[in-house]
Amino acid sequence: MKKDLGASVSFIPAPVFVVATYDSNGKPNAMTAAFGGVICAAPRCVYVSLRKATYTYSNLMETKAYTINIPGERYVKEADYFGIVTGKTTDKFAATGLTAVKSEFVNAPYISEFPLNLECKVIQTLDFGSHTQFVGEVVNSKIDESLLENGDLSIIEQIRPIIFDMGRDYHAIGKKIGKGYSVGKEISGKA
Amino acid sequence: MKKDLGASVSFIPAPVFVVATYDSNGKPNAMTAAFGGVICAAPRCVYVSLRKATYTYSNLMETKAYTINIPGERYVKEADYFGIVTGKTTDKFAATGLTAVKSEFVNAPYISEFPLNLECKVIQTLDFGSHTQFVGEVVNSKIDESLLENGDLSIIEQIRPIIFDMGRDYHAIGKKIGKGYSVGKEISGKA
Repeated sequence: MKKDLGASVSFIPAPVFVVATYDSNGKPNAMTAAFGGVICAAPRCVYVSLRKATYTYSNLMETKAYTINIPGERYVKEADYFGIVTGKTTDKFAATGLTAVKSEFVNAPYISEFPLNLECKVIQTLDFGSHTQFVGEVVNSKIDESLLENGDLSIIEQIRPIIFDMGRDYHAIGKKIGKGYSVGKEISGKA
Repeated sequence: MKKDLGASVSFIPAPVFVVATYDSNGKPNAMTAAFGGVICAAPRCVYVSLRKATYTYSNLMETKAYTINIPGERYVKEADYFGIVTGKTTDKFAATGLTAVKSEFVNAPYISEFPLNLECKVIQTLDFGSHTQFVGEVVNSKIDESLLENGDLSIIEQIRPIIFDMGRDYHAIGKKIGKGYSVGKEISGKA
């Protein structure tokens, strides 16, 4: 039996993206967004959706650039903290001890301790109501080099990204359950 | 040390959304999209991004409605199959034995075996290049009622959604590693 929940997005699995920007004084800031993803393959476009009241929103309107930083699960406290506190009154990098490094590609900092960083230029800003979608073209992506050298584990098993269930809990990534464009061939008969 | 990967979205954790639509003859179709997420809280908007060549793209242009169906991990083969085969020449529901049920809220079917279903009306269509973003307003969401009755496990631990690392492998959801808007208070000192 199905139960109707109304206009809800509860329980949708969402990525945990930490969005890093500079303010007009060059102070780096980071905030956590669960409204984010990939929009287009060519050009490579991603997005984050933000409320107008956030400090990151103001920063983005000025700099038109951000990075998406994927925290590993050992940074779950920091990721949550970045979503709780505003950069208007706090230096979140000082508070967490994490390192903001200026990107060579866009006018935004990336978080060097996080294993994966996407460097993006804002190419469109779309207002949908409570949230504005900042469409970013991915100019470059950075990964911890050490992750490419460990043949025993896949990259995602080393990154260990955090999954959020929209307002409740953070979860780790679990075991591999199938290969993309492959496990389904058992049904199509083309295996 | 960081390594530059160029304009890449590899290794970003993505949800596995199975998008269900009707074609002009009322035949239900389902395809899998990893380009999807939540865009706005009020109104509640989600999106899926699709290539123009897909059958679902043509269906959406006609019906302006879709459902996002979240498969549990035991349906990983079906989810992959829905992404491999085209509905132009195949009845994917017949091939998988899954059940398409007409939504009471939008002109699209949902997959009754999948634990979570979002019923969406297309309110905007944005062409970014290779992919078109179909912005859907969530009119209703359905969940398997039994999931609400098991107090020992969280909803997401019962749904057991699939996470995709953009082109490679499907992963299960792992253990809970923290509570949202809570674990970060250890840093802010407001715990």
